[in-house]
Amino acid sequence: MELVPGNSLITASPQEGRELAIAIARKTIGAIQPDAEVRKSLRPDYAEDADSLTAAGHVVAIEFATIAAANNYWR
Amino acid sequence: MELVPGNSLITASPQEGRELAIAIARKTIGAIQPDAEVRKSLRPDYAEDADSLTAAGHVVAIEFATIAAANNYWR
Amino acid sequence: MELVPGNSLITASPQEGRELAIAIARKTIGAIQPDAEVRKSLRPDYAEDADSLTAAGHVVAIEFATIAAANNYWR
Amino acid sequence: MELVPGNSLITASPQEGRELAIAIARKTIGAIQPDAEVRKSLRPDYAEDADSLTAAGHVVAIEFATIAAANNYWR
Amino acid sequence: MELVPGNSLITASPQEGRELAIAIARKTIGAIQPDAEVRKSLRPDYAEDADSLTAAGHVVAIEFATIAAANNYWR
Amino acid sequence: MELVPGNSLITASPQEGRELAIAIARKTIGAIQPDAEVRKSLRPDYAEDADSLTAAGHVVAIEFATIAAANNYWR
Repeated sequence: MELVPGNSLITASPQEGRELAIAIARKTIGAIQPDAEVRKSLRPDYAEDADSLTAAGHVVAIEFATIAAANNYWR
Repeated sequence: MELVPGNSLITASPQEGRELAIAIARKTIGAIQPDAEVRKSLRPDYAEDADSLTAAGHVVAIEFATIAAANNYWR
Repeated sequence: MELVPGNSLITASPQEGRELAIAIARKTIGAIQPDAEVRKSLRPDYAEDADSLTAAGHVVAIEFATIAAANNYWR
Repeated sequence: MELVPGNSLITASPQEGRELAIAIARKTIGAIQPDAEVRKSLRPDYAEDADSLTAAGHVVAIEFATIAAANNYWR
Repeated sequence: MELVPGNSLITASPQEGRELAIAIARKTIGAIQPDAEVRKSLRPDYAEDADSLTAAGHVVAIEFATIAAANNYWR
Repeated sequence: MELVPGNSLITASPQEGRELAIAIARKTIGAIQPDAEVRKSLRPDYAEDADSLTAAGHVVAIEFATIAAANNYWR
């Protein structure tokens, strides 16, 4: 199963880094719960719950910190 | 969808870095839940709940850590 | 709205760095929930709840990590 | 009990680094709860719960940050 | 109010660094809830709750990460 | 009370570093709740709860990040 799209943390810009952070976070959920039907059924549980959305955003923030460091912050 | 306003982590000051941190955190929530009406309906759930506000502030703190490092802490 | 008092992460000592961490954390809550009356009404919810206090302390710890790095740990 | 497969944080690629992050996170749960039957019985509790999946993905993100730094981000 | 005992992050050893991490975490709770009677009344809420203890240990881990970096990991 | 076994963060391998991370996390819980009987009574609360195990694994991940940095990632 592909866990890191492109198998690299290097991106051309912060925007692409952020997209990668979201993608990596989602791939990990897919690795833990491989059943796409189950994942789909769970979507309303978090996409319509403020705290769940915050928790999901929290994970993206951590993935992005790693990707940003990998890219020397695109300075 | 724009995830990083200005497509850069570099800001002129800590104040602007903090504003960027808040903006990035919000953009991510918008990416996960693209329906603006749903997001609006959820706002009272967290804006009037102490623990939800703390959780939101937590995410901003993490985004800011990344932005601060990107800017060499504006030393 | 002022998000970083003094618009700098540099402080004279760890004590002042810790005070800044608390101040920054609070300013962010103020940015997310600008209504001071609402914030005041929420205070008992977290100030008299052990887990809420721990969560608030958690955010301060993260803000402080950033400030401490900015100051080269006041070595 | 083996806690770090291969006893090394060095991997050939981000993909393998991510796999190691997931493996390390799981090994730690195994160390805290060594009874495989209990762990198996708990699986539906988190694999079919959106917030539990997010929390598990959060831990993987932190493990990955360490592994990515160990590998100089596979630059 | 004293937030960082000794007003320094430098300690002689990891043991002392850990003690400082616990002390700093507690001082912050004291800053957020200055009423010692309230804090005392809340103690059973977290000291006899597994998840609350884990959350408290989590904060100490973060404070310790900062202190350990400040001390170049006592290498 | 001993908080860091061996009073050092330096270990011979990632495996030993992980063992130290688990030990440090447990010692901190022991410092916050010194009564061994209470700790023992709480064990089923988290060892048989998926979210509690994830939370415990989260703390170990953070402790390990510090130990891994201290050891230059055993490169």
